[in-house]
Amino acid sequence: MTTTIIDGLYYANKIINEIKTKVDKLKIKPKLVVILVGNDNASQIYVNNKQKRCLEVGIMSEVLHFDENINQTELLDIIKQLNEDTEVNAILVQMPLPKHINPDKIVEAISPVKDVDGFHPYNVGKLALNMTPYSIACTPSGILKLLNAYNIKINGKHVVIIGRSNIVGRPLMSLLLNNNATVTVCHSKTENLKEITNTADILISAVGKSNFINSAFVKHNVCIIDVGINRDKNNKITGDVDFNDIFDKCSFITPVPKGVGPMTIAMLLQNTLNLYDIQNKK
Amino acid sequence: MTTTIIDGLYYANKIINEIKTKVDKLKIKPKLVVILVGNDNASQIYVNNKQKRCLEVGIMSEVLHFDENINQTELLDIIKQLNEDTEVNAILVQMPLPKHINPDKIVEAISPVKDVDGFHPYNVGKLALNMTPYSIACTPSGILKLLNAYNIKINGKHVVIIGRSNIVGRPLMSLLLNNNATVTVCHSKTENLKEITNTADILISAVGKSNFINSAFVKHNVCIIDVGINRDKNNKITGDVDFNDIFDKCSFITPVPKGVGPMTIAMLLQNTLNLYDIQNKK
Repeated sequence: MTTTIIDGLYYANKIINEIKTKVDKLKIKPKLVVILVGNDNASQIYVNNKQKRCLEVGIMSEVLHFDENINQTELLDIIKQLNEDTEVNAILVQMPLPKHINPDKIVEAISPVKDVDGFHPYNVGKLALNMTPYSIACTPSGILKLLNAYNIKINGKHVVIIGRSNIVGRPLMSLLLNNNATVTVCHSKTENLKEITNTADILISAVGKSNFINSAFVKHNVCIIDVGINRDKNNKITGDVDFNDIFDKCSFITPVPKGVGPMTIAMLLQNTLNLYDIQNKK
Repeated sequence: MTTTIIDGLYYANKIINEIKTKVDKLKIKPKLVVILVGNDNASQIYVNNKQKRCLEVGIMSEVLHFDENINQTELLDIIKQLNEDTEVNAILVQMPLPKHINPDKIVEAISPVKDVDGFHPYNVGKLALNMTPYSIACTPSGILKLLNAYNIKINGKHVVIIGRSNIVGRPLMSLLLNNNATVTVCHSKTENLKEITNTADILISAVGKSNFINSAFVKHNVCIIDVGINRDKNNKITGDVDFNDIFDKCSFITPVPKGVGPMTIAMLLQNTLNLYDIQNKK
């Protein structure tokens, strides 16, 4: 048996190039506005990276950077203006927000048709009902693209997801169920985790712990999707999976880095373009 | 080992009596409007039953019965008027609708704060995000009430749901995940169904086939929740579960009838009262 390493970087670049080709043909370019509050270092790096990738494909990107003391009402007013601004196609609020601001209220204030992250309850609900949301959360849709790119069968197969966050586990559960997988969601409270993961045809880990998953967790021929981005004791970036230990047991495995991560940013650009298209069809 | 038969009728009546006591104290009574289109016999029976139960607890119930030729725009206008009518607290559209009407458009037209069935994407999304929807679908919330009434442990336990409908399986998946269950959703495309159901601590069947589940599907001490309402060859009402065959293997089991069914109607009354309370707190 051979193990295929899923090349997320390759497919992300392929998608990004396709987006660039499409955007090049547009007279008016799609525009993403990113709201950043405060001076969290990691957030600034994420936002800079998003902006850089937008510019590479010709998507206009504006970062609105606010002092951490901005109050909720002011922020809601800004979102309202952005909702009404026909030049703005997509709005992203970088999390986390300062504690005095309710993140749910902020996300709900974004017009669903400009909700590029797919986090608005309306879009989450449409996904959960197997209808057509304006956007689907970037990491789940990136994972689905990778599974499809490698012709990994989902229909009827048992997918076990570890982690039930609102940005990965929960939308992924809906998305894979909509694609006819049998879906199990495990999490911190799950009893007998190892017994359950051993029944998985596809195991998706979004836990956030280095080397959390090893060969004892899986059956032979499993497909492993590693969503974790952690740092080990040597400050090296690792996923949730003990890659070397599990490698021989897998049919497919995503590496970290260059697995799921690059797909997430590609999906953000894709979602921005999709929202532009939707708004310009109306 | 003894098997406990879960008495849904008893708990439904208990809840209904509590609702009646609360409604009796209200000067202005909660009001539910039911929209019925066409002359489907089963729909008329359901609607009559809902109206009867409302009246028993003092909830005002109005049925708006339209000819099956009503067009979508007219129906949307009526819903708009009901949304604006402050005397109306809850709106229910009896499904199915005639084929020329898009049911998703109709459900989305209902104001989420009057969506008594919890079917609006906004409410479904809030549930899927473990936030607080205005309403949760009646059958799933009825099932949760029964599990809690019998102190059946959900936290960390493996719940297997068979069926992924928008009115039972999907919202139930979210609701149980929010209550810390490990949740698996199986359906018509699931391979190895029996292997998966044999790992369930709680098995919930919403398939719609008499005697679909028997003792070969479950491990000892399982809790069985039977959501099916079917008719067997003798026209007798049955669930999905072969009750006699499975009985000795279960710790708990819901009968059909008098199991989940009565809880669904109790939850409809509860949701109506909840929406009334929400609207009158504003």
